[in-house]
Amino acid sequence: MLLEELIEAFRVLPGVGRKSAQRMAYHVLERGREGGKRLATVLAEAVERIGHCAQCRDFSEDEVCAVCASGSRDRQQLCVVETPADRLAIETATGYRGVYFVLQGRLSPLDGVGPRELGLETLGTRLAAGEVSEMIIATSATVEGEATAHYLAQLARQHGVRPSRLAQGLPLGGELEYVDRGTLSHAFGTRAEMP
Amino acid sequence: MLLEELIEAFRVLPGVGRKSAQRMAYHVLERGREGGKRLATVLAEAVERIGHCAQCRDFSEDEVCAVCASGSRDRQQLCVVETPADRLAIETATGYRGVYFVLQGRLSPLDGVGPRELGLETLGTRLAAGEVSEMIIATSATVEGEATAHYLAQLARQHGVRPSRLAQGLPLGGELEYVDRGTLSHAFGTRAEMP
Repeated sequence: MLLEELIEAFRVLPGVGRKSAQRMAYHVLERGREGGKRLATVLAEAVERIGHCAQCRDFSEDEVCAVCASGSRDRQQLCVVETPADRLAIETATGYRGVYFVLQGRLSPLDGVGPRELGLETLGTRLAAGEVSEMIIATSATVEGEATAHYLAQLARQHGVRPSRLAQGLPLGGELEYVDRGTLSHAFGTRAEMP
Repeated sequence: MLLEELIEAFRVLPGVGRKSAQRMAYHVLERGREGGKRLATVLAEAVERIGHCAQCRDFSEDEVCAVCASGSRDRQQLCVVETPADRLAIETATGYRGVYFVLQGRLSPLDGVGPRELGLETLGTRLAAGEVSEMIIATSATVEGEATAHYLAQLARQHGVRPSRLAQGLPLGGELEYVDRGTLSHAFGTRAEMP
Protein backbone atom coordinates (compact mmCIF):
# COMPACT_ATOMS: atom_id res chain seq x y z
CA MET A 1 0.00 0.00 0.00
CA LEU A 2 1.40 3.33 -1.08
CA LEU A 3 0.37 5.21 2.09
CA GLU A 4 2.11 2.58 4.19
CA GLU A 5 5.24 2.89 2.05
CA LEU A 6 5.19 6.65 2.45
CA ILE A 7 4.98 6.36 6.24
CA GLU A 8 7.92 3.93 6.25
CA ALA A 9 9.92 6.20 3.94
CA PHE A 10 9.56 9.19 6.29
CA ARG A 11 11.29 7.18 9.02
CA VAL A 12 14.63 7.76 7.34
CA LEU A 13 14.51 11.27 8.82
CA PRO A 14 16.25 11.80 12.18
CA GLY A 15 14.03 11.66 15.26
CA VAL A 16 11.06 10.47 13.24
CA GLY A 17 9.39 7.35 14.61
CA ARG A 18 6.32 5.52 13.43
CA LYS A 19 3.89 8.04 14.93
CA SER A 20 5.55 11.19 13.55
CA ALA A 21 6.02 9.55 10.17
CA GLN A 22 2.31 8.83 10.06
CA ARG A 23 1.50 12.41 11.03
CA MET A 24 3.78 13.70 8.28
CA ALA A 25 2.23 11.48 5.64
CA TYR A 26 -1.30 12.49 6.61
CA HIS A 27 -0.38 16.15 6.83
CA VAL A 28 1.19 16.19 3.37
CA LEU A 29 -1.82 14.42 1.86
CA GLU A 30 -4.39 16.53 3.66
CA ARG A 31 -2.95 19.99 3.51
CA GLY A 32 0.42 20.08 1.84
CA ARG A 33 0.31 18.35 -1.55
CA GLU A 34 2.04 21.20 -3.33
CA GLY A 35 4.77 21.38 -0.69
CA GLY A 36 5.06 17.60 -0.73
CA LYS A 37 5.56 17.56 -4.48
CA ARG A 38 8.20 20.23 -4.13
CA LEU A 39 9.97 18.36 -1.30
CA ALA A 40 10.07 15.22 -3.44
CA THR A 41 11.62 17.09 -6.36
CA VAL A 42 14.20 19.02 -4.36
CA LEU A 43 15.12 15.98 -2.27
CA ALA A 44 15.72 13.81 -5.33
CA GLU A 45 17.87 16.53 -6.86
CA ALA A 46 19.81 17.22 -3.66
CA VAL A 47 20.63 13.57 -2.99
CA GLU A 48 21.82 13.29 -6.57
CA ARG A 49 23.79 16.49 -6.89
CA ILE A 50 25.14 17.61 -3.50
CA GLY A 51 28.63 16.27 -2.83
CA HIS A 52 31.57 17.51 -0.79
CA CYS A 53 33.78 20.53 -1.43
CA ALA A 54 37.27 19.37 -2.49
CA GLN A 55 38.89 21.96 -0.24
CA CYS A 56 36.86 22.10 2.99
CA ARG A 57 34.76 18.91 2.80
CA ASP A 58 31.54 20.82 3.49
CA PHE A 59 28.47 19.96 1.42
CA SER A 60 28.60 21.55 -1.99
CA GLU A 61 26.90 21.29 -5.34
CA ASP A 62 30.11 22.34 -7.04
CA GLU A 63 33.64 20.98 -6.95
CA VAL A 64 34.58 23.85 -4.61
CA CYS A 65 32.00 25.46 -2.29
CA ALA A 66 31.01 29.13 -2.33
CA VAL A 67 33.05 30.05 0.78
CA CYS A 68 36.25 28.38 -0.44
CA ALA A 69 35.79 29.86 -3.92
CA SER A 70 35.14 33.36 -2.56
CA GLY A 71 37.88 35.92 -3.15
CA SER A 72 36.94 37.97 -0.10
CA ARG A 73 37.77 35.42 2.63
CA ASP A 74 40.94 35.55 4.70
CA ARG A 75 42.91 32.39 3.89
CA GLN A 76 45.29 32.86 6.82
CA GLN A 77 42.60 31.83 9.27
CA LEU A 78 41.30 28.27 9.08
CA CYS A 79 38.45 27.23 11.34
CA VAL A 80 38.08 23.47 11.86
CA VAL A 81 34.59 22.22 12.73
CA GLU A 82 33.01 18.81 13.15
CA THR A 83 29.91 19.16 10.97
CA PRO A 84 28.37 21.35 8.28
CA ALA A 85 25.80 22.43 10.88
CA ASP A 86 28.64 23.71 13.10
CA ARG A 87 30.10 25.64 10.19
CA LEU A 88 26.72 27.20 9.50
CA ALA A 89 26.27 28.11 13.17
CA ILE A 90 29.62 29.94 13.25
CA GLU A 91 28.95 31.62 9.92
CA THR A 92 25.58 32.86 11.17
CA ALA A 93 26.56 33.89 14.70
CA THR A 94 30.00 35.43 14.26
CA GLY A 95 31.64 37.86 11.90
CA TYR A 96 34.33 35.34 10.97
CA ARG A 97 35.78 36.03 7.53
CA GLY A 98 38.33 33.21 7.28
CA VAL A 99 37.85 29.80 5.70
CA TYR A 100 36.77 26.43 7.11
CA PHE A 101 37.62 22.77 7.20
CA VAL A 102 34.81 20.34 7.99
CA LEU A 103 35.91 17.06 9.61
CA GLN A 104 32.51 15.40 9.08
CA GLY A 105 32.97 13.70 12.44
CA ARG A 106 35.47 13.55 15.31
CA LEU A 107 38.18 11.13 16.35
CA SER A 108 36.56 8.05 17.78
CA PRO A 109 38.83 5.00 17.43
CA LEU A 110 36.21 2.66 18.87
CA ASP A 111 33.82 3.59 16.06
CA GLY A 112 36.58 3.25 13.50
CA VAL A 113 36.88 6.99 12.96
CA GLY A 114 40.59 7.85 12.69
CA PRO A 115 42.60 10.67 11.10
CA ARG A 116 41.98 9.24 7.63
CA GLU A 117 38.18 9.34 7.95
CA LEU A 118 38.36 13.00 9.02
CA GLY A 119 40.41 13.94 5.99
CA LEU A 120 43.40 15.00 8.10
CA GLU A 121 45.79 14.16 5.25
CA THR A 122 44.12 16.80 3.10
CA LEU A 123 44.27 19.17 6.05
CA GLY A 124 47.99 18.46 6.56
CA THR A 125 48.72 19.15 2.91
CA ARG A 126 46.88 22.42 3.21
CA LEU A 127 48.79 23.48 6.33
CA ALA A 128 52.08 22.48 4.64
CA ALA A 129 51.27 24.90 1.79
CA GLY A 130 52.06 27.66 4.27
CA GLU A 131 49.14 30.01 3.63
CA VAL A 132 47.42 29.36 7.00
CA SER A 133 48.77 31.16 10.08
CA GLU A 134 46.03 30.41 12.66
CA MET A 135 43.96 27.28 13.06
CA ILE A 136 40.81 27.95 15.06
CA ILE A 137 39.77 24.60 16.50
CA ALA A 138 36.00 24.66 16.97
CA THR A 139 35.31 21.02 17.77
CA SER A 140 32.74 20.43 20.47
CA ALA A 141 33.52 20.53 24.19
CA THR A 142 32.97 16.79 24.65
CA VAL A 143 35.61 14.21 25.51
CA GLU A 144 35.94 13.15 21.86
CA GLY A 145 35.85 16.77 20.71
CA GLU A 146 38.69 17.62 23.12
CA ALA A 147 40.76 14.63 21.98
CA THR A 148 40.26 15.71 18.38
CA ALA A 149 41.26 19.25 19.32
CA HIS A 150 44.52 18.04 20.89
CA TYR A 151 45.35 16.00 17.83
CA LEU A 152 44.60 18.96 15.56
CA ALA A 153 46.71 21.32 17.70
CA GLN A 154 49.70 18.96 17.35
CA LEU A 155 49.19 18.80 13.61
CA ALA A 156 49.06 22.60 13.44
CA ARG A 157 52.26 23.03 15.46
CA GLN A 158 54.07 20.53 13.23
CA HIS A 159 53.42 22.91 10.36
CA GLY A 160 54.24 26.06 12.31
CA VAL A 161 50.59 27.08 12.49
CA ARG A 162 49.26 28.68 15.71
CA PRO A 163 46.31 26.63 17.10
CA SER A 164 43.53 28.34 19.05
CA ARG A 165 40.42 26.96 20.73
CA LEU A 166 36.99 28.51 21.36
CA ALA A 167 36.66 29.91 24.90
CA GLN A 168 34.88 27.75 27.48
CA GLY A 169 32.88 29.03 30.42
CA LEU A 170 29.42 30.21 31.39
CA PRO A 171 27.03 30.69 28.48
CA LEU A 172 25.94 34.31 28.02
CA GLY A 173 22.71 35.00 29.90
CA GLY A 174 23.10 31.73 31.79
CA GLU A 175 21.92 31.71 35.39
CA LEU A 176 24.70 30.36 37.63
CA GLU A 177 22.19 28.14 39.40
CA TYR A 178 21.34 26.23 36.24
CA VAL A 179 24.81 25.84 34.77
CA ASP A 180 26.12 22.27 34.97
CA ARG A 181 28.81 21.47 37.55
CA GLY A 182 31.58 20.79 35.05
CA THR A 183 31.15 24.11 33.30
CA LEU A 184 30.87 26.00 36.58
CA SER A 185 33.98 24.39 38.02
CA HIS A 186 35.92 25.08 34.82
CA ALA A 187 34.73 28.70 34.63
CA PHE A 188 35.66 29.21 38.28
CA GLY A 189 39.10 27.74 37.80
CA THR A 190 39.86 29.81 34.68
CA ARG A 191 38.41 33.08 35.99
CA ALA A 192 39.99 36.19 34.54
CA GLU A 193 40.89 39.42 36.30
CA MET A 194 38.46 42.22 35.55
CA PRO A 195 39.87 45.22 33.75
CA MET B 1 21.52 27.10 -3.34
CA LEU B 2 20.18 23.57 -3.47
CA LEU B 3 20.92 22.75 0.19
CA GLU B 4 19.06 25.87 1.26
CA GLU B 5 16.10 24.88 -0.93
CA LEU B 6 16.09 21.41 0.60
CA ILE B 7 16.00 22.85 4.12
CA GLU B 8 13.10 25.13 3.16
CA ALA B 9 11.27 22.24 1.50
CA PHE B 10 11.41 20.11 4.66
CA ARG B 11 9.49 22.82 6.51
CA VAL B 12 6.28 21.74 4.82
CA LEU B 13 6.23 18.84 7.30
CA PRO B 14 4.23 19.31 10.51
CA GLY B 15 6.19 20.43 13.57
CA VAL B 16 9.34 20.97 11.55
CA GLY B 17 10.92 24.37 12.02
CA ARG B 18 14.12 25.79 10.60
CA LYS B 19 16.39 23.87 12.96
CA SER B 20 14.80 20.46 12.48
CA ALA B 21 14.62 20.99 8.72
CA GLN B 22 18.34 21.67 8.70
CA ARG B 23 19.03 18.58 10.77
CA MET B 24 16.93 16.49 8.38
CA ALA B 25 18.72 17.81 5.31
CA TYR B 26 22.16 17.20 6.81
CA HIS B 27 21.16 13.77 8.05
CA VAL B 28 19.88 12.64 4.67
CA LEU B 29 23.01 13.92 2.91
CA GLU B 30 25.39 12.47 5.50
CA ARG B 31 23.94 9.12 6.30
CA GLY B 32 20.71 8.52 4.44
CA ARG B 33 21.13 9.11 0.72
CA GLU B 34 19.49 5.82 -0.22
CA GLY B 35 16.58 6.43 2.12
CA GLY B 36 16.33 10.01 0.89
CA LYS B 37 16.10 8.91 -2.71
CA ARG B 38 13.42 6.44 -1.77
CA LEU B 39 11.46 9.06 0.22
CA ALA B 40 11.57 11.40 -2.79
CA THR B 41 10.23 8.72 -5.12
CA VAL B 42 7.48 7.45 -2.83
CA LEU B 43 6.43 10.98 -1.84
CA ALA B 44 6.10 12.11 -5.45
CA GLU B 45 4.05 9.03 -6.26
CA ALA B 46 1.86 9.32 -3.15
CA VAL B 47 1.04 12.99 -3.68
CA GLU B 48 0.10 12.16 -7.25
CA ARG B 49 -1.88 8.99 -6.75
CA ILE B 50 -3.47 8.93 -3.29
CA GLY B 51 -6.98 10.36 -3.33
CA HIS B 52 -10.10 9.73 -1.25
CA CYS B 53 -12.29 6.65 -1.13
CA ALA B 54 -15.66 7.39 -2.75
CA GLN B 55 -17.49 5.56 0.03
CA CYS B 56 -15.73 6.42 3.30
CA ARG B 57 -13.59 9.46 2.31
CA ASP B 58 -10.44 7.88 3.82
CA PHE B 59 -7.22 8.12 1.82
CA SER B 60 -7.09 5.57 -0.96
CA GLU B 61 -5.13 4.85 -4.10
CA ASP B 62 -8.21 3.27 -5.62
CA GLU B 63 -11.74 4.56 -6.23
CA VAL B 64 -12.88 2.51 -3.21
CA CYS B 65 -10.51 1.70 -0.33
CA ALA B 66 -9.56 -1.81 0.81
CA VAL B 67 -11.85 -1.78 3.86
CA CYS B 68 -14.92 -0.57 1.94
CA ALA B 69 -14.21 -3.02 -0.88
CA SER B 70 -13.73 -5.96 1.49
CA GLY B 71 -16.41 -8.61 1.47
CA SER B 72 -15.74 -9.64 5.07
CA ARG B 73 -16.74 -6.42 6.87
CA ASP B 74 -20.08 -5.98 8.61
CA ARG B 75 -21.95 -3.22 6.74
CA GLN B 76 -24.55 -2.83 9.49
CA GLN B 77 -22.04 -1.07 11.73
CA LEU B 78 -20.70 2.28 10.57
CA CYS B 79 -18.01 3.99 12.65
CA VAL B 80 -17.64 7.73 12.05
CA VAL B 81 -14.21 9.24 12.79
CA GLU B 82 -12.64 12.64 12.28
CA THR B 83 -9.39 11.71 10.57
CA PRO B 84 -7.66 8.84 8.76
CA ALA B 85 -5.31 8.61 11.77
CA ASP B 86 -8.33 8.01 14.05
CA ARG B 87 -9.58 5.28 11.73
CA LEU B 88 -6.17 3.63 11.80
CA ALA B 89 -6.02 3.86 15.61
CA ILE B 90 -9.39 2.09 15.95
CA GLU B 91 -8.48 -0.49 13.33
CA THR B 92 -5.23 -1.25 15.17
CA ALA B 93 -6.50 -1.21 18.76
CA THR B 94 -9.90 -2.84 18.52
CA GLY B 95 -11.37 -5.89 16.89
CA TYR B 96 -13.96 -3.80 15.03
CA ARG B 97 -15.16 -5.52 11.85
CA GLY B 98 -17.65 -2.94 10.58
CA VAL B 99 -17.00 -0.14 8.09
CA TYR B 100 -16.01 3.51 8.51
CA PHE B 101 -16.83 7.02 7.45
CA VAL B 102 -14.05 9.62 7.70
CA LEU B 103 -15.24 13.21 8.18
CA GLN B 104 -11.79 14.69 7.44
CA GLY B 105 -12.46 17.31 10.13
CA ARG B 106 -15.19 18.29 12.59
CA LEU B 107 -17.97 20.85 12.66
CA SER B 108 -16.43 24.25 13.23
CA PRO B 109 -18.63 27.02 11.81
CA LEU B 110 -16.10 29.74 12.69
CA ASP B 111 -13.50 28.03 10.48
CA GLY B 112 -16.04 27.54 7.72
CA VAL B 113 -16.35 23.81 8.31
CA GLY B 114 -20.02 22.86 8.04
CA PRO B 115 -21.95 19.67 7.18
CA ARG B 116 -21.05 20.03 3.51
CA GLU B 117 -17.28 20.06 4.13
CA LEU B 118 -17.59 16.90 6.23
CA GLY B 119 -19.41 15.06 3.45
CA LEU B 120 -22.56 14.62 5.54
CA GLU B 121 -24.74 14.55 2.40
CA THR B 122 -22.91 11.43 1.27
CA LEU B 123 -23.31 10.03 4.78
CA GLY B 124 -27.04 10.84 4.75
CA THR B 125 -27.52 9.06 1.42
CA ARG B 126 -25.74 6.06 2.84
CA LEU B 127 -27.93 5.95 5.96
CA ALA B 128 -31.03 6.35 3.79
CA ALA B 129 -30.06 3.21 1.86
CA GLY B 130 -31.06 1.29 4.99
CA GLU B 131 -28.13 -1.09 5.30
CA VAL B 132 -26.67 0.53 8.45
CA SER B 133 -28.24 -0.27 11.82
CA GLU B 134 -25.71 1.25 14.25
CA MET B 135 -23.64 4.39 13.85
CA ILE B 136 -20.65 4.36 16.23
CA ILE B 137 -19.70 8.01 16.68
CA ALA B 138 -15.97 8.15 17.45
CA THR B 139 -15.33 11.88 17.17
CA SER B 140 -12.95 13.26 19.79
CA ALA B 141 -14.01 14.26 23.29
CA THR B 142 -13.47 17.98 22.68
CA VAL B 143 -16.14 20.67 22.50
CA GLU B 144 -16.17 20.58 18.70
CA GLY B 145 -16.03 16.80 18.67
CA GLU B 146 -19.06 16.66 20.99
CA ALA B 147 -21.00 19.15 18.86
CA THR B 148 -20.23 17.06 15.79
CA ALA B 149 -21.34 13.94 17.67
CA HIS B 150 -24.68 15.53 18.54
CA TYR B 151 -25.26 16.56 14.96
CA LEU B 152 -24.37 13.06 13.74
CA ALA B 153 -26.67 11.43 16.31
CA GLN B 154 -29.59 13.53 15.04
CA LEU B 155 -28.80 12.58 11.46
CA ALA B 156 -28.69 8.90 12.47
CA ARG B 157 -32.04 9.04 14.26
CA GLN B 158 -33.65 10.74 11.25
CA HIS B 159 -32.82 7.63 9.26
CA GLY B 160 -33.83 5.18 11.99
CA VAL B 161 -30.21 4.31 12.75
CA ARG B 162 -29.13 3.77 16.37
CA PRO B 163 -26.29 6.18 17.31
CA SER B 164 -23.67 5.16 19.91
CA ARG B 165 -20.71 7.00 21.36
CA LEU B 166 -17.34 5.75 22.70
CA ALA B 167 -17.32 5.45 26.50
CA GLN B 168 -15.71 8.28 28.48
CA GLY B 169 -13.94 7.91 31.81
CA LEU B 170 -10.60 7.09 33.37
CA PRO B 171 -8.00 5.82 30.92
CA LEU B 172 -6.90 2.22 31.63
CA GLY B 173 -3.86 2.16 33.91
CA GLY B 174 -4.37 5.85 34.71
CA GLU B 175 -3.46 6.94 38.24
CA LEU B 176 -6.37 8.84 39.75
CA GLU B 177 -4.00 11.54 40.96
CA TYR B 178 -2.89 12.45 37.45
CA VAL B 179 -6.23 12.33 35.66
CA ASP B 180 -7.52 15.80 34.70
CA ARG B 181 -10.41 17.25 36.72
CA GLY B 182 -12.95 17.15 33.89
CA THR B 183 -12.41 13.47 33.23
CA LEU B 184 -12.43 12.63 36.95
CA SER B 185 -15.62 14.54 37.56
CA HIS B 186 -17.30 12.91 34.57
CA ALA B 187 -16.13 9.43 35.56
CA PHE B 188 -17.36 9.98 39.12
CA GLY B 189 -20.75 11.18 37.91
CA THR B 190 -21.24 8.27 35.49
CA ARG B 191 -19.93 5.55 37.84
CA ALA B 192 -21.41 2.12 37.26
CA GLU B 193 -22.46 -0.49 39.79
CA MET B 194 -20.00 -3.33 40.11
CA PRO B 195 -21.29 -6.77 39.14
